[in-house]
Amino acid sequence: MRQIHICEVGPRDGLQNAHHLMPTEAKKAWIAAMAAAGIAEIEVGSFVPPKLIPAMADTAEIVAFALTLKNVKTVALAPNVKGFERALAAGAQKITFPVSASRQHSLANVRMTPEQMADEVKKCVQLRGKVGPEIEAGVATAFGCTMQGEVPEDDVVRLAVRLAESGVDCVALADTVGYANPAQIRRIFRRVKSEIGNKLEAAHLHNTRGLGLANALAAYEEGVRHFDSSMGGLGGCPFAPGASGNVITEDLVYMFESMGVSTGIDLDKLMEARKLMVAAIPEEPVYGHMALAGVHKGFRAAA
Amino acid sequence: MRQIHICEVGPRDGLQNAHHLMPTEAKKAWIAAMAAAGIAEIEVGSFVPPKLIPAMADTAEIVAFALTLKNVKTVALAPNVKGFERALAAGAQKITFPVSASRQHSLANVRMTPEQMADEVKKCVQLRGKVGPEIEAGVATAFGCTMQGEVPEDDVVRLAVRLAESGVDCVALADTVGYANPAQIRRIFRRVKSEIGNKLEAAHLHNTRGLGLANALAAYEEGVRHFDSSMGGLGGCPFAPGASGNVITEDLVYMFESMGVSTGIDLDKLMEARKLMVAAIPEEPVYGHMALAGVHKGFRAAA
Repeated sequence: MRQIHICEVGPRDGLQNAHHLMPTEAKKAWIAAMAAAGIAEIEVGSFVPPKLIPAMADTAEIVAFALTLKNVKTVALAPNVKGFERALAAGAQKITFPVSASRQHSLANVRMTPEQMADEVKKCVQLRGKVGPEIEAGVATAFGCTMQGEVPEDDVVRLAVRLAESGVDCVALADTVGYANPAQIRRIFRRVKSEIGNKLEAAHLHNTRGLGLANALAAYEEGVRHFDSSMGGLGGCPFAPGASGNVITEDLVYMFESMGVSTGIDLDKLMEARKLMVAAIPEEPVYGHMALAGVHKGFRAAA
Repeated sequence: MRQIHICEVGPRDGLQNAHHLMPTEAKKAWIAAMAAAGIAEIEVGSFVPPKLIPAMADTAEIVAFALTLKNVKTVALAPNVKGFERALAAGAQKITFPVSASRQHSLANVRMTPEQMADEVKKCVQLRGKVGPEIEAGVATAFGCTMQGEVPEDDVVRLAVRLAESGVDCVALADTVGYANPAQIRRIFRRVKSEIGNKLEAAHLHNTRGLGLANALAAYEEGVRHFDSSMGGLGGCPFAPGASGNVITEDLVYMFESMGVSTGIDLDKLMEARKLMVAAIPEEPVYGHMALAGVHKGFRAAA
């Protein structure tokens, strides 16, 4: 039935960059509403030091709550071995690591080179052993970097291969800062896929320059079936005030469903979940065309 | 050099739907600035009865002004023979007719069936004789209609063929109300192209539901090289308050230039022209990601 898989990253990528803190109980209600709308995978938080990112301080509690929900995979981000151990202890079903392809960004962000960070992921794969959660490595800044500008495509391909060989279950390519264009999406996804095959899974796209849906379309046409997105484009972009953040879940669902590509998500229920989010942090800027225009007359969801 | 051709329709489609009137002198300055930015085709107004649409009352004067500018084709809309005669008298270099594929929309809008409206266009082609301006017929509501909902694809194809056979120079397909999705764009452009070949020229897209750029990408990949768009998505959508209007020129230019597809337009100068527009009607809502985020670091325009 479900032809593409959307992982909602709003509770993590969105709230991490938002200007307002969402109370823990409101997060739970929001996540439950999104699960009820049919979102099958939710990145609910990040195991980073709470002092650094207070919005993520309740991640263990949120993971525990999400695990009580039916039909939803509970995903958490870990930036290193320490975060991984916390995510394991909390019981996250999938743990995702951001590994920046931009040397400058990686050094500034985690004080490790991309290669050192890949080794950190490898350690976690070994720590997990034979049972344990799914592990994803996301190649961050794969399409450009606010510090370094261009990120050589060869660096992206090399890093993706290294991560795939380290034993992760899947690799994502992330347009962390909204630099990608559709031609580049096609080119890089194609190159990485030819190297690591089906281990290449998700596209994590941002909408900073309005190309989020066009890039998602290009990725889809290159065979991508897993997309990260965030409700309301929550969180914006720290480098472009006023610009939206991740590609917007509601609009992404509308695009694919209109095309006849099933997401498994009920758009009406999704809009109800959006209301919960807006009510919980009413002054936070949110984005999206569905909230303004609604679906077109005669819209039919994909079968 | 120029690989795709953008026709700026803001002074017509945008201002016609705007809530504020732009003074004639401001229109001229704005149009001149857009021509200076490298926009080679501008739809400057509409020869409709001034009583019906006061924003278009100065169209003859605006056409006369645009004709004094270098390197820009002056386009005007005509809804019927009477409008065509006024456009001819004004000296428009290209005259475009909207012909709605939705029977309900056509009857409500011009009190003619699509076939009667196509006959009206044919009369104009005959009136023009052997010399005279280029004539375009735009199939309006080609992807759906706010009144009728779905518009059968067969109706769109049949109407496009009828218009092509009537002797117009080119046919456009218009997503007048922002209902299209990329799969539909591919399907309908492909069908119409197989019937009328290179007479199928432009895609006129709206961004009501955020799919404007994704649809433009799909059309481009189907071989479309002419796009209508409007600066700042000016004019919004009368059926979806708060939603943007036409696909946004600045964002469209950014997408194509990022992909290495030359538009012949200087993005910096385009943003200067946008400032003139905003200054002339400061309370009118405008849209667009370029105005918020700017180009990415390391952006290079297509060669």
